[in-house]
Amino acid sequence: MYILVTNDDGIDSAGIHALVHVMRRLGEVVVVAPDRQQSAVGHALTVSSPLRATPFHRDGEMFGYAINGTPADCVKLGVSTLLERRPDIVVSGINHGSNASVNAIYSGTVSAATEGTLMGIPSMAVSHTSFDHRADMTLAAEVAYTVASRLLDLHLPAGTLLNVNVPDVDRSSFKGYRIARQGYSEWKDAYDTRMDPQGRPYYWLSGEFVTIQEHADADDLLVAEGWAAITPIHYELTNFAYLERLQAHPVVAEICASNR
Amino acid sequence: MYILVTNDDGIDSAGIHALVHVMRRLGEVVVVAPDRQQSAVGHALTVSSPLRATPFHRDGEMFGYAINGTPADCVKLGVSTLLERRPDIVVSGINHGSNASVNAIYSGTVSAATEGTLMGIPSMAVSHTSFDHRADMTLAAEVAYTVASRLLDLHLPAGTLLNVNVPDVDRSSFKGYRIARQGYSEWKDAYDTRMDPQGRPYYWLSGEFVTIQEHADADDLLVAEGWAAITPIHYELTNFAYLERLQAHPVVAEICASNR
Repeated sequence: MYILVTNDDGIDSAGIHALVHVMRRLGEVVVVAPDRQQSAVGHALTVSSPLRATPFHRDGEMFGYAINGTPADCVKLGVSTLLERRPDIVVSGINHGSNASVNAIYSGTVSAATEGTLMGIPSMAVSHTSFDHRADMTLAAEVAYTVASRLLDLHLPAGTLLNVNVPDVDRSSFKGYRIARQGYSEWKDAYDTRMDPQGRPYYWLSGEFVTIQEHADADDLLVAEGWAAITPIHYELTNFAYLERLQAHPVVAEICASNR
Repeated sequence: MYILVTNDDGIDSAGIHALVHVMRRLGEVVVVAPDRQQSAVGHALTVSSPLRATPFHRDGEMFGYAINGTPADCVKLGVSTLLERRPDIVVSGINHGSNASVNAIYSGTVSAATEGTLMGIPSMAVSHTSFDHRADMTLAAEVAYTVASRLLDLHLPAGTLLNVNVPDVDRSSFKGYRIARQGYSEWKDAYDTRMDPQGRPYYWLSGEFVTIQEHADADDLLVAEGWAAITPIHYELTNFAYLERLQAHPVVAEICASNR
């Protein structure tokens, strides 16, 4: 296999190092990753400035290309321009911090895998639920290897990727794998309002993750219980059930009539 | 109504000016918008640096708060901290350029409305399909007004917002309103590889929008025909049909067994 590896924590993070290490057992690995931390960038693209691809060395050997852009940029530029041939799979991670539930929306890690999917390449994102950058990546790397090794056999439907989240537990406490749905847990946000030395306010995002217990197979709940959650997600955003109701909605009829 | 208006083109764009003008007919308007162009930022959040809210004046009067952040930042900071009370609705736009089909994924305009939805506030995004910053915003403003005036009456389900796209046509050629699904049309990307004066390469994103004719009610197709497309979208990313297939998939059984 020819494997494109990227992430959003930056090309020098511990997570991508661990991921590359295990992916090399599966085939030839090319790394194209941001040159710095790009968390919570969502599905951002760099359009108004040019990108650079700088060779990045690790342990005395070429590790990959460092890009002055976002995770989605890395996949687009890598697949279209930098790579010698089309990769068989795209693997994004290992992210430091959960991308279960609503985190998937903000996640650069997931957006990189989404970009691979948009380009028609089977893709997956892998995240370790600990935000600690010294967290042990052994289990997460094993999970990444196990899922990536069978990714082509799963025949993902067009437009669908796997969002894999791994618990922060010892190998002995790991419960195993579960197919999950995206959970509804979310951030309860607040901003710290502080004063600068000139007495002018500035605002710093803080927040608390609130677990909403709605479905037993929600990815964030499964991970909290010690499972690796595999969530099939897609970028079909249409709410079809509501679309049908809207088409028959009297208010919509009035809106349409307003143009006569 | 108390209306939060934001966008991704920046607080000084023509589109937000036109939007605020018509929203004032519906109630009290507060503007919290990025201090500069933030297109294609996706659902990015600023977490590692503080935000500033600078009063921005237009035509000699206070127009709103300019934020050194993303559209999603503007909604989070506005609702949680800057606004006197919780807004009744969030309206994001008027974007210069289409946010139909796959553009919704990259769109800062849509992400701002998504953030409003995440906070439980009925929200909509409005985009004008012309990228020309001198485009006539009259029709798009009329469409924004018409939909926003009935937004509360539509009783949007939790987690669902309206992505409204307006054609670049004269008022007389406007066909009216249609409920749509997200289209499948997408960008066929390429990077211009250029050399800098030192002979080092740099890469600039270019691309061609490829219309994929799959469903007659796809938002990009309807807009191309002269309709204003109203697409109900949500951030439930789970592919449920495939989830069921995955749960019964022999390869998944093997993956699960690998942990025994």
